[in-house]
Amino acid sequence: MWHQQELRLAPRSHGFHLITDEIAGGLEKLSEVKVGLLHLQLLHTSASLTLNENADPDVRHDLDAFLRERVPGDLPYFRHTLEGPDDMPAHVCASLLGTQLTLAVRDGRLALGTWQGIWLGEHRDHGGARRLIATLQGE
Amino acid sequence: MWHQQELRLAPRSHGFHLITDEIAGGLEKLSEVKVGLLHLQLLHTSASLTLNENADPDVRHDLDAFLRERVPGDLPYFRHTLEGPDDMPAHVCASLLGTQLTLAVRDGRLALGTWQGIWLGEHRDHGGARRLIATLQGE
Amino acid sequence: MWHQQELRLAPRSHGFHLITDEIAGGLEKLSEVKVGLLHLQLLHTSASLTLNENADPDVRHDLDAFLRERVPGDLPYFRHTLEGPDDMPAHVCASLLGTQLTLAVRDGRLALGTWQGIWLGEHRDHGGARRLIATLQGE
Repeated sequence: MWHQQELRLAPRSHGFHLITDEIAGGLEKLSEVKVGLLHLQLLHTSASLTLNENADPDVRHDLDAFLRERVPGDLPYFRHTLEGPDDMPAHVCASLLGTQLTLAVRDGRLALGTWQGIWLGEHRDHGGARRLIATLQGE
Repeated sequence: MWHQQELRLAPRSHGFHLITDEIAGGLEKLSEVKVGLLHLQLLHTSASLTLNENADPDVRHDLDAFLRERVPGDLPYFRHTLEGPDDMPAHVCASLLGTQLTLAVRDGRLALGTWQGIWLGEHRDHGGARRLIATLQGE
Repeated sequence: MWHQQELRLAPRSHGFHLITDEIAGGLEKLSEVKVGLLHLQLLHTSASLTLNENADPDVRHDLDAFLRERVPGDLPYFRHTLEGPDDMPAHVCASLLGTQLTLAVRDGRLALGTWQGIWLGEHRDHGGARRLIATLQGE
């Protein structure tokens, strides 16, 4: 079976946010899939999706702090600067971390490791609501 | 339905290149898929595939400039240097950005965001033509 | 057809390791798939999966050396430090390189390029055995 729907993520502040429950809770058909895959694709180029730790929020803080330091907005060779100093770093982070993920589904649930969660990386200061396409397939 | 074919991308200069139309135009079966996924996998280890902005070419320039500065070829601990100073950075970029992408398909088209395009990252100075396998599935 | 199984990777030292044969050899159904996809997802947040060169081991050394230098454990703003100086860098590398991969399958084999192999990135000093879920589909 195939099921595709668009999900809208509430606006978030700059940084990483755990969205596992928001994703899984928005997919009514998930419980029907015994074996399958869920594909998630952000429709934006200044945010990201990644799998990482679901427990200590310091991990999310630290990755954001690392990227802010290592991907600054004021590099002398950046030309795409009209939309502000948070814009080009956001594009860099979108490609470094990725904007799409494929996840295993088993027995009607995401088959994540004990410590795994889905993170939204919001790399703009005022990114607003983010949309993604969820494509679920399986049997 | 499943459809798999090999695509050949024309040689490009070092940097990022928008290949959305070259990919979509090369896939005759795409228009037949109402809901599905397209998987793209480069057959190389010194180029990359990523989703990013499809409008201002400065974004492509800036990401390439960032990677050239932050992933130089003359690091003292690099051992894999026989193929020239552009080679090891190309391997690093291939893993940082990735060489495979999965994309949502809806109503016979790639379901990309308004500003999203498929980028080929050519990380060698003379990478030549690049081959990829496109696997399309859906219904 | 769909087939899903959990694979256990033997413990490895910090660094990158070629696991193509361990993956392909562990999937009995692979030979039955004429056209399809294999999805691999690590169940951990301090290791990674990536495609890169399968020949010269220096490439694996160099990427690990690059990441050790560029993602150090003693950054003053890191808060998640209780588990040791190799822990937070491991989380960063897991997101930069990714923990899931989708690979083309053709004629009962992984359709990799001549120089492509699957790498496990072990980013902890004593990561132990790593588990992943392999989801194979195709016809």
